Amino acid sequence: MSEFRSIVGHFSCEVYWGDCDPAGIIFYPTYFRWMDAATWAFMASVGYPPQRMREEHLAMPLVGADCEFLAPARHGDRCEVRSRIARFGGASFAVSHEIARADGAMLAKGNEKRVWGRFANGPGTPMKGEQVPESVRALFRAK
Amino acid sequence: MSEFRSIVGHFSCEVYWGDCDPAGIIFYPTYFRWMDAATWAFMASVGYPPQRMREEHLAMPLVGADCEFLAPARHGDRCEVRSRIARFGGASFAVSHEIARADGAMLAKGNEKRVWGRFANGPGTPMKGEQVPESVRALFRAK
Amino acid sequence: MSEFRSIVGHFSCEVYWGDCDPAGIIFYPTYFRWMDAATWAFMASVGYPPQRMREEHLAMPLVGADCEFLAPARHGDRCEVRSRIARFGGASFAVSHEIARADGAMLAKGNEKRVWGRFANGPGTPMKGEQVPESVRALFRAK
Amino acid sequence: MSEFRSIVGHFSCEVYWGDCDPAGIIFYPTYFRWMDAATWAFMASVGYPPQRMREEHLAMPLVGADCEFLAPARHGDRCEVRSRIARFGGASFAVSHEIARADGAMLAKGNEKRVWGRFANGPGTPMKGEQVPESVRALFRAK
Repeated sequence: MSEFRSIVGHFSCEVYWGDCDPAGIIFYPTYFRWMDAATWAFMASVGYPPQRMREEHLAMPLVGADCEFLAPARHGDRCEVRSRIARFGGASFAVSHEIARADGAMLAKGNEKRVWGRFANGPGTPMKGEQVPESVRALFRAK
Repeated sequence: MSEFRSIVGHFSCEVYWGDCDPAGIIFYPTYFRWMDAATWAFMASVGYPPQRMREEHLAMPLVGADCEFLAPARHGDRCEVRSRIARFGGASFAVSHEIARADGAMLAKGNEKRVWGRFANGPGTPMKGEQVPESVRALFRAK
Repeated sequence: MSEFRSIVGHFSCEVYWGDCDPAGIIFYPTYFRWMDAATWAFMASVGYPPQRMREEHLAMPLVGADCEFLAPARHGDRCEVRSRIARFGGASFAVSHEIARADGAMLAKGNEKRVWGRFANGPGTPMKGEQVPESVRALFRAK
Repeated sequence: MSEFRSIVGHFSCEVYWGDCDPAGIIFYPTYFRWMDAATWAFMASVGYPPQRMREEHLAMPLVGADCEFLAPARHGDRCEVRSRIARFGGASFAVSHEIARADGAMLAKGNEKRVWGRFANGPGTPMKGEQVPESVRALFRAK
């Protein structure tokens, strides 16, 4: 898999009270919830909103995920996840995410490795990985 | 709907770090997550585990839920949810839950009103409410 | 406690993939997470953002919460929580929430009963209820 | 940091309905919630339960986390997280986790890199990293 020159997706989010733990900062799985939502939003931004994904029985199951936590986020912080396709490789693709606070501070950097898959017969039925179509790759290619 | 003499389900749970908020106590939607899990465990205890629910395309969507919070729970508290069927009524049923800490302190009391439903064609497809079968009611009746 | 003529708070939210369950609709505790976030946003809108709440050692622990689920929300639905103070009563107050989808469909209606409290020495230390100050009540009063 | 010969912690968990997404399998941030809870349980197992951590103002903030997802988990699956200290290094330490289903299937393998820290004045106040005490390291050393 070679590097991919990707457009950038933007996903706005905010640290809610319930996203924080007794240390008064963000509970770290929240970052992964944000990265997941950011990837779905990124897909929507190029023409694949949730409704289309459902209708076409498409899925994006995870193979792996990682995140570095660079600075603590606190309740009320407004943030943005900036997402890029790092690589397309056969049936898999990698999304890299940067999470920044509204004041510009970089809070976290993470990656998701996903499979492009299709349910045999709608959500909940068996899913099979498929080659990511060139038409989909093209949507994410920076001009 | 008249009162139902129900058996009692027991669901063990624990307050994890990530279930708590910056006040150092349980974030209240956690109680609703527990009540939901307790109802599924209650169903499993009478012969309807998740796998059977899936295979028979059964669902238990919510119509309403409420909870009173009586004492704060803290990280590390071991708890038990005690569940009863409060009422069966046509296609709906009500589950009442008491949440107690291991030392006996009552933390919360809540209720869920649910519908007994069936998916037309597996999860994600349209769902229709159905009369709760007498065979199911019988499973919850205290002897 | 008599009815209170309240201003209305507006909190935007969206149903994410991870907010939904295998039935393909919103997992119901998500509504309570939204109501909690909406109440914090409502406070912020009148001059009590999270940072001020922290600095003044203020808290809003829950005494009870309930919600009726009127229509299922699905992945990708954009929603709004409209919040009002239903009552102020001594150290407690009640917030009523309506959750509507962007197309206007009413999805849920809920209520939170909360205490106005102050930590003895910052989050995590003991908390005591206090009479809601008239200055705070005034901020929520509809003109 | 050299490899550490660690004892193994065992944390039991179960995939609940609300932990799953519309694909009918576990929503991946759930694995990180489990790893966090498993690390706290591991600490408790060697004499540092949550109450002691609170009283001594100790914290274990994250520097990074990663997970590989090897097989999908479904609603009702009973699982175990097996945790080991992979390394101690100055103020940081790494915990490696294996997540297995009751039938032995390996579902996920992950790692957390954490700092051993202390709050200046209880949760919510500033936190500083500290050298992990030799007395703590000894508790995790396999005999």
